[in-house]
Amino acid sequence: MKTHIAIDVGGTQLRAACYPSDSVIPLKLNKITTQSSDATPLERLTALISSIWPDGQEVAAIGLAVPGPTNPYQGIIYTAPNIPGWDNLPLVGLLQEKFNVPVFLGNDANLAALGEWQFGVGRGHHHLLYLTISTGIGGGVILDDRLLLGMHGLATELGHITLVPDGPLCGCGKRGHLEAFSSGTAIARWVEQELAAGKPSTLPSNQKLSAREISAAAQQGDALAKAAFHRAGTYLGIALANYLHAFNPSIIIFGGGVSRSGELLFAPMRAILREQVISPQYLADLTITTAALGDESGLMGALALARSGMM
Amino acid sequence: MKTHIAIDVGGTQLRAACYPSDSVIPLKLNKITTQSSDATPLERLTALISSIWPDGQEVAAIGLAVPGPTNPYQGIIYTAPNIPGWDNLPLVGLLQEKFNVPVFLGNDANLAALGEWQFGVGRGHHHLLYLTISTGIGGGVILDDRLLLGMHGLATELGHITLVPDGPLCGCGKRGHLEAFSSGTAIARWVEQELAAGKPSTLPSNQKLSAREISAAAQQGDALAKAAFHRAGTYLGIALANYLHAFNPSIIIFGGGVSRSGELLFAPMRAILREQVISPQYLADLTITTAALGDESGLMGALALARSGMM
Repeated sequence: MKTHIAIDVGGTQLRAACYPSDSVIPLKLNKITTQSSDATPLERLTALISSIWPDGQEVAAIGLAVPGPTNPYQGIIYTAPNIPGWDNLPLVGLLQEKFNVPVFLGNDANLAALGEWQFGVGRGHHHLLYLTISTGIGGGVILDDRLLLGMHGLATELGHITLVPDGPLCGCGKRGHLEAFSSGTAIARWVEQELAAGKPSTLPSNQKLSAREISAAAQQGDALAKAAFHRAGTYLGIALANYLHAFNPSIIIFGGGVSRSGELLFAPMRAILREQVISPQYLADLTITTAALGDESGLMGALALARSGMM
Repeated sequence: MKTHIAIDVGGTQLRAACYPSDSVIPLKLNKITTQSSDATPLERLTALISSIWPDGQEVAAIGLAVPGPTNPYQGIIYTAPNIPGWDNLPLVGLLQEKFNVPVFLGNDANLAALGEWQFGVGRGHHHLLYLTISTGIGGGVILDDRLLLGMHGLATELGHITLVPDGPLCGCGKRGHLEAFSSGTAIARWVEQELAAGKPSTLPSNQKLSAREISAAAQQGDALAKAAFHRAGTYLGIALANYLHAFNPSIIIFGGGVSRSGELLFAPMRAILREQVISPQYLADLTITTAALGDESGLMGALALARSGMM
């Protein structure tokens, strides 16, 4: 029987699994830290792949979900945040030479969209928008049953849409992007600034906060924490209206840790979305939901990629 | 020989042509005003189609480019600006019943993108972004050699992206959209407001201006007129950066009367675009150009649609 290998490459963890052709239950699964003192991330990755290589069975293809901008057509990682040395890395070529099977890679947010479409809550949809909201904001879009990649595979950088020119600084170095308003980092920074300005809150001032702590405080009724999520959800709704006008999807799927704050974020988002769409038709038959695969979405997307070999 | 009929439906003019299967030179071409006192626009449209019906040759299909939001899957026009009574009009069904051939329709900006991709300056590109800038701003996108339509055919309403929440009023009734900054209407309104506030200019105050007059004044060196195009071009560049991040196209094509102002609009647009992209890769191998088909783009797109029958 032919098998496929899926790999989720993160800055802190590498996860790999080998799947039979007819199931999403792995034959073998292994995870290791990405970085260590005795080997490079690339050496650790190849060792991990060897560790889950199936005994006596053929591997048809390897699929990899990698962080940061990639060129899936050329199999190159432009930059991988938090993995030193992975700049313009021809990962597909290196792994194909080592393992002698076809290798495909994709941006992790793109592949999470593919994973949810193939195996998760997006099954049966032809036009799907996926947004992951955690420290940053990433996205993936399926249109007409195809992953949207664009000329160099750099499409759907959905965190980097300008909502307010000269607005707050974004993780990318530009200003006023969605990510600078609605990511976990942005939520924490705004609360820290408000606390420094003397706003009352149960949250401690003069220290680094996390979106998770702020979410917990908001659940307890803290007004400043609630205002932070209201602000983040409002800008998220403005961005989503733009994306409805651009893509007209039938489903929007939210992944990432910050989306676990639920209605704190989604209630203001839905309210502004209804105001902002230029026609109620955009909301007709539109499903808005959270990801079904959770932390598995990247691995499942890499599996879908390995099986389809679409890039 | 099989022929195809293409129709461009505008608020003021209806144009129709019949083409042989191997050429873009029409066998018959006719145009009439959309509205008259003695017949409805639909009656005029069917009479126009009859007037160019080929003698002794089969018509394989009819394609129509129509203004405003449409559902190309269902063949319905939701609303057609400037054509009274065309609300939720099942035009495809009506024409198929009348002429007994397959009928396809699409939004005119979408079909202009298709026309430029098939017959114009976009030939050979797989990922194309088309923007028409005239009284309003419309758009069309080709991705992976397919027209982007979305669930209900309402995708790529590219004039209606929010650039400044609570910004100037847009033609759609919402605020701060690209169309509210960079359309001909927006350019004229801004100049009229500046003149009313006493700004010096060679342009007359207290009267309606057109973007064409303002463009002419700018070419003559009028500072206010130049500032108007600089402002419009700057917001256009911010929007384009968003669209590069969303679609990563290999070509951007500008149509519409305002784009004939050329460098007045495009010089500030390119300057801000270089600042705004999150990676220079988005500009690598990117062509930015103006439409080759001009006023024919809608008709050519309708022909491409009739021949492909893609919706």
